[in-house]
Amino acid sequence: MNSSIIRFILGHVLKIEGLLLFLPAMVSGIYQENEGLYYVGVACASLFLGFLMTRKPPKNEVFYLKEGCIATSLSWILLSIFGCLPFYLSGEIPSFTDSLFETISGFTTTGATILSDVESLSNCALFWRSFTHWIGGMGVLVFLLAVIPLSGGSHINLMRAESPGPSVGKLVPKIRYTARILYIIYLAMTIIECIFLLFGGMPLFDALTTSFSTAGTGGYGIKNDSFMSYSPYLQWVVTIFMLLFGINFNAYYLMIFGSIKKAFSMEEVRVYLGIIVIAILIIFINIFQTCSSAFEALTHSAFQVSSLMTSTGFSSVDFNLWPQASKTILVLLMFVGACAGSTGGGIKVSRIIILFKTIIKELNSYIHPKIIKKIKMDGKLVEHEVVRSINVYFITFMIIFSASVLAISFEGKDLVTNFTAVIAVLNNIGPGLEFAGPTQNFGHFTIFSKYVLMFDMLAGRLELFPLLILFHPAAWKDFFTKRFIQK
Amino acid sequence: MNSSIIRFILGHVLKIEGLLLFLPAMVSGIYQENEGLYYVGVACASLFLGFLMTRKPPKNEVFYLKEGCIATSLSWILLSIFGCLPFYLSGEIPSFTDSLFETISGFTTTGATILSDVESLSNCALFWRSFTHWIGGMGVLVFLLAVIPLSGGSHINLMRAESPGPSVGKLVPKIRYTARILYIIYLAMTIIECIFLLFGGMPLFDALTTSFSTAGTGGYGIKNDSFMSYSPYLQWVVTIFMLLFGINFNAYYLMIFGSIKKAFSMEEVRVYLGIIVIAILIIFINIFQTCSSAFEALTHSAFQVSSLMTSTGFSSVDFNLWPQASKTILVLLMFVGACAGSTGGGIKVSRIIILFKTIIKELNSYIHPKIIKKIKMDGKLVEHEVVRSINVYFITFMIIFSASVLAISFEGKDLVTNFTAVIAVLNNIGPGLEFAGPTQNFGHFTIFSKYVLMFDMLAGRLELFPLLILFHPAAWKDFFTKRFIQK
Repeated sequence: MNSSIIRFILGHVLKIEGLLLFLPAMVSGIYQENEGLYYVGVACASLFLGFLMTRKPPKNEVFYLKEGCIATSLSWILLSIFGCLPFYLSGEIPSFTDSLFETISGFTTTGATILSDVESLSNCALFWRSFTHWIGGMGVLVFLLAVIPLSGGSHINLMRAESPGPSVGKLVPKIRYTARILYIIYLAMTIIECIFLLFGGMPLFDALTTSFSTAGTGGYGIKNDSFMSYSPYLQWVVTIFMLLFGINFNAYYLMIFGSIKKAFSMEEVRVYLGIIVIAILIIFINIFQTCSSAFEALTHSAFQVSSLMTSTGFSSVDFNLWPQASKTILVLLMFVGACAGSTGGGIKVSRIIILFKTIIKELNSYIHPKIIKKIKMDGKLVEHEVVRSINVYFITFMIIFSASVLAISFEGKDLVTNFTAVIAVLNNIGPGLEFAGPTQNFGHFTIFSKYVLMFDMLAGRLELFPLLILFHPAAWKDFFTKRFIQK
Repeated sequence: MNSSIIRFILGHVLKIEGLLLFLPAMVSGIYQENEGLYYVGVACASLFLGFLMTRKPPKNEVFYLKEGCIATSLSWILLSIFGCLPFYLSGEIPSFTDSLFETISGFTTTGATILSDVESLSNCALFWRSFTHWIGGMGVLVFLLAVIPLSGGSHINLMRAESPGPSVGKLVPKIRYTARILYIIYLAMTIIECIFLLFGGMPLFDALTTSFSTAGTGGYGIKNDSFMSYSPYLQWVVTIFMLLFGINFNAYYLMIFGSIKKAFSMEEVRVYLGIIVIAILIIFINIFQTCSSAFEALTHSAFQVSSLMTSTGFSSVDFNLWPQASKTILVLLMFVGACAGSTGGGIKVSRIIILFKTIIKELNSYIHPKIIKKIKMDGKLVEHEVVRSINVYFITFMIIFSASVLAISFEGKDLVTNFTAVIAVLNNIGPGLEFAGPTQNFGHFTIFSKYVLMFDMLAGRLELFPLLILFHPAAWKDFFTKRFIQK
């Protein structure tokens, strides 16, 4: 294994994090908060360590899928450990486990919090929480690829490990430009949302943090009641932007450089929008009687559907009190998730489409055993290997899901809490139902359960296999062989 | 499509059912119950119709997988419609939907009842309920193959549609002898269980019906409290026989004609027993404090684990009141199910083993992308086609499961009830949790929900695709084309 390239990448990640930590420090300067010092301290430490690790360039810049996965997983773990230190050292979150939970939940864009009183945090902490969503949404290694000139040509293996979805679409032949284009679209959309929010009378600080949380489909709010007390205008702005950030970014690229028609003819985008419209309609009818007006029912159903389907996790209402059918629809949407190639989590619409097509193909093979039809998507054949890996993904997902529900069941909470808490973290959504519901928080789980949930958040964000590889003995075998036996 | 062979098979099924219906009629003679007349009436009607349908032999005895699936699905539906008539006509179950539910639940060996007071039924009705389990357990078409000489040679397509598990194992080259051997083992084990129960002081009627329900892994009891008031000896006998009927019947064949060592070296059997032992141990520790003695805790945990894992569904205790971890384990076992080639339901242990091996294979492919390892089971390569079909099975299973939970959620019951009710019927188990729990019944569901649950029972018993085919337009197209257009 090429461990020097992994060290090199980790060093760069630390340097980037060091730079980014100066932003909350600046916020603390504006609001004259003492907590800012901890951000400066951690920033310097991680810059220093980053420089040490990147001082010696790697002997060999080639890396394979295995190194790509390990580098990505370790980057996210390192990022979270350093990112949580300001919370912990400043004492704003007194427990290390809780600080780490909050930070992993931030970077993975889950948005599940252990805090019962968010409003008591300092502004710099609130800013950093939301900003972790923004960094995690598009991915820190994608950012790295956009700014650091790495030769070697196998960077697709880094991007493949970090990007959501069954297959990585290179927008342009060069990975580096693809990464840049993605970040430019991402930044532009974040700014546009912020302007719309300011226009609705939201203070700048609120507008910035909300835009970060929406863009990364994270869901950390700066109010204890999430989005319940904001005006309907602001709720609708956020609804629409949640929806937009859940769309495959290829569609935006097509819109800018191709044609709008082509973007809207993407099968995944159409199914995604179709599911959303149908879910909004059913929930609208289902909750109509409990709301004071049709507009209110529409606002809440649209907000909640967009929020949970895109894995953002903001709440405009305590949907745990909704009728069972609406809650069931929300739980199913939580499994589906957003589009591949978006900042959203979940199994992803494109995978679900291919899973359905697999079933139809199987049924056809019973009728006509001799005709072998291939699965198509957007008119193109889907490679057998992609179909196979989607099947395996789904199976692995369900097994990790079941094992996690079992693991946290030992603390005695009810099945619905455990079930929805796990799906909420595994798909990077945030709130679930009952004790994991929108008016609750994750602080009451035991330390053991919190680590299980942290594992799930990382597994969900990195799409399972890159993280699982860390637990495969073969991944470490030659690392140790080189180090201790060859000497 | 060869519809004359389908008619011919359906006719035979009706004749068999007609003969079988004389058994409960005889029971009514012994207990001098008037309800017996309805059984005689329906028996004569189905014999008459059966003779009409088999009067003309089919022009062509060859049939393919499609015909096999359609014949199987229609057989089960027809069997259930005729089988429910005595309940309905005698007025013992006043609603047709409920009668049909009770009968489908019987034949599919689900054991979910709509009755709140089982003890008020006549003895012939109790006998018929349990006997449907016995018929459904091994399969009526397997029985047909064992007794009716059909030429044509493609009977594997009938057996494939009805037998549980990912691939049909022919014990001996001839399907007919395979079917006979299976029924002989089945009958012998049923008789042995009955003797053990009689030995424990159970009345003959109770022993017979209990043996039928255990053998088919059904779960209809003749007491309102299922198995709670029987002695620990009887509970242990049933525990052990539930376990035995959940084992792949190939193992028994190997024991008789091969070696016991070979039978126990079957990977599926070992994993099955391993899961059961681990589950019993964890639940034993988990419920220990709530029981009056260690023996009681062991009895109940062993009984419940065997009952739900093998999809029988008897209960020795109200496990809905158990701690969350135990309930979660039971729910997971409900998904796993028994061994393939047994009378039990569920996804099946062999499928779960292959799903896990698929994940390990995928992980290995990240580490060594160029080495392609194949999945092995019992030392033999598993064909790619089998792995693929297991993946598709699992996906289809989860989608039918989710759609069913959504469909029944509109009547407003809680998520745990809906979730466990669907898994309890889809895997032919019987009881779930909460309002579908062991002390409850399914009578309170709406008619719509009941039909959804009936669909699930049939889909689960026929392993999804044979039933789904009935909804595929292509399956009917050439049937109608022949009939109405060619003329």
